[in-house]
Amino acid sequence: MSTSYKYLKIENLDNFRKIIISNPTQKNALNVQAYSELTDALNSAAKDDSVTLVALTGDGDYYSSGNDIKAFLTVNDPQKAVADAGIVLKSMIRAFFTFPKLLICVVNGPCIGISCTTAVLCDIIYAVDTAYFYTPFSLLGLCAEGCASYTFPRILGRSKANEMLLLNYKLSAAEAYQFQLVSKVYKKSELNTILWPTIQKQSKLPRDSICVTKRLINEFKLKDLENVCDRELEELYKRFESDDFIQAVSNFFQRKSKL
Amino acid sequence: MSTSYKYLKIENLDNFRKIIISNPTQKNALNVQAYSELTDALNSAAKDDSVTLVALTGDGDYYSSGNDIKAFLTVNDPQKAVADAGIVLKSMIRAFFTFPKLLICVVNGPCIGISCTTAVLCDIIYAVDTAYFYTPFSLLGLCAEGCASYTFPRILGRSKANEMLLLNYKLSAAEAYQFQLVSKVYKKSELNTILWPTIQKQSKLPRDSICVTKRLINEFKLKDLENVCDRELEELYKRFESDDFIQAVSNFFQRKSKL
Amino acid sequence: MSTSYKYLKIENLDNFRKIIISNPTQKNALNVQAYSELTDALNSAAKDDSVTLVALTGDGDYYSSGNDIKAFLTVNDPQKAVADAGIVLKSMIRAFFTFPKLLICVVNGPCIGISCTTAVLCDIIYAVDTAYFYTPFSLLGLCAEGCASYTFPRILGRSKANEMLLLNYKLSAAEAYQFQLVSKVYKKSELNTILWPTIQKQSKLPRDSICVTKRLINEFKLKDLENVCDRELEELYKRFESDDFIQAVSNFFQRKSKL
Repeated sequence: MSTSYKYLKIENLDNFRKIIISNPTQKNALNVQAYSELTDALNSAAKDDSVTLVALTGDGDYYSSGNDIKAFLTVNDPQKAVADAGIVLKSMIRAFFTFPKLLICVVNGPCIGISCTTAVLCDIIYAVDTAYFYTPFSLLGLCAEGCASYTFPRILGRSKANEMLLLNYKLSAAEAYQFQLVSKVYKKSELNTILWPTIQKQSKLPRDSICVTKRLINEFKLKDLENVCDRELEELYKRFESDDFIQAVSNFFQRKSKL
Repeated sequence: MSTSYKYLKIENLDNFRKIIISNPTQKNALNVQAYSELTDALNSAAKDDSVTLVALTGDGDYYSSGNDIKAFLTVNDPQKAVADAGIVLKSMIRAFFTFPKLLICVVNGPCIGISCTTAVLCDIIYAVDTAYFYTPFSLLGLCAEGCASYTFPRILGRSKANEMLLLNYKLSAAEAYQFQLVSKVYKKSELNTILWPTIQKQSKLPRDSICVTKRLINEFKLKDLENVCDRELEELYKRFESDDFIQAVSNFFQRKSKL
Repeated sequence: MSTSYKYLKIENLDNFRKIIISNPTQKNALNVQAYSELTDALNSAAKDDSVTLVALTGDGDYYSSGNDIKAFLTVNDPQKAVADAGIVLKSMIRAFFTFPKLLICVVNGPCIGISCTTAVLCDIIYAVDTAYFYTPFSLLGLCAEGCASYTFPRILGRSKANEMLLLNYKLSAAEAYQFQLVSKVYKKSELNTILWPTIQKQSKLPRDSICVTKRLINEFKLKDLENVCDRELEELYKRFESDDFIQAVSNFFQRKSKL
């Protein structure tokens, strides 16, 4: 593990490692370097014998606003940037669904795009009541990524999953609990008083016992996730070259500039 | 597309096509001709480049009361009628689960039997608060059809799905939301003021983007649905020849005549 | 069917057989003989033409407190006892998921460990409002069994299933309904006035019709369940030899002795 990351903060408490996404001026958006750092942080925690349990969360009021589109579009050669990012993106998605230890996501605020689809790859999700889950793929002319085409229908049921993945439905924390996406909704003030101390305590449970059950849970779907991940990215790269995407991005920034 | 159907009404609004099941004197029950018309309407919409999104609904207070058993039993040769209907039925079920564009079901009232199982094959379901979902297979001595043996447990969970499929449990709109079958429950008056205008607006989203994600969602289960559909119909034809069915139908009409 | 069991009571009403787990001084814990009796009772009901529907429940205030660990650890050779129990355990789990008729579980109180994982293998689960579902595998240094690593995520969604299977989360009856594990929650007094009479009535539904649909529902997952069952038990036997288990059992009895 690199001892210092630009877009992540790391805390260690007993056998529990907390990874905090931190890019405050960009609502914790993820750029290519942040993808690499997150991949490295997960892979390092996987190998570190002192770690039983990893929790991911965001710094401040956002969990993460997703892919930093602006960072992509302000480089000289966006198509090349996308292609390069693709490899990094795939490594990060795989780092999530192949992570061998207990991985908890504490969604402390809005959770958007790739941050949302990878949150759903964590073993357990908790959310604060002001959080929401949002995957505006068709608004951007894109398609599902991060195995969402596979995981969302299996958790939320066909209808709500399709509303999110096809019609850009913004899922509130309350409805995320209702539709089985999150295990519990907390008030923000309860994170420090209740949730984090609980998780720290749980990190003392026998690690092998947890990892064996996790492996049993995953072994019947790992091959599926690998295939889905690849198929989605294949389609995603085609979508990046579509007129729909170019038009949608242009509209997106026009809307932003009006706010 | 045939320009005029006997049991369907068609409306076109922007890139949105509305298909309305309309057989008012029979609570929108589906007979063999209605199956053919619905198949044709879906296949035509699939091919029509002006269409991004199709919504199915029913005329009046019923979505549809399901298969028109009376129409079957009043023909000269019911066994032959069932066999002929089988081919038409299979084509209709396939037209639902192979439909390549966004397919929304707006359940405006009771939704029964084959109408219920095919509604569940739509991408998104909305319901009015007076709707219910009902598949009285064992009451009729029959068995699951329309891929319900596959789709229901994956959406509703094992227990509630089995209550519906094995014990003729009538699922209210509120519980359909609770059990992830529908995305939202509307008051009937809100369909015209809120839902239909929203759907019309959504039909302007980029079609390819939506269809690519839908294809990704479906590609891991299409083969399963094909197999399930065939296996169910195979068993269903045997059930049509069983004493259970003959007895159940006789009871059914006796109860009806007493109401 | 053996006419008299030590740990089960049997009642027959119309085409309905009620199997009652009864070991009152041990909160209906299951020891090796109880496993054998339950297996025999299920297999006998499967073959008995007078039976359409079987319901499982517990005697008194507990459904079942799960595996009777004390019975294992007080024998002379616990390792051998575990190995012998393994064969009996596997037969029981298989008797649940291969049961060909309608199998309803009426959870009349706390439902723990192997009793919980096998309850989830029943077709339909009802619970009283004082019941809870609890699988403290990692607290005991063990791993998932009874196909729970497969069934739980598919019913409860990934997040809540993992909370239960990895973090020993105790699921209340209300949340079991919320997360689709049970079809309905009853007041205890309603079991005799509402639920049991309803089930007895349902046992008169046509048996073949119900069994055909049940077979259709199961045929796409039976092979998976067989594999999962074997894989889990393979890992479980390794866990029985781990320091985690020995330490956890020691802690468990120390806590008990302090109460």
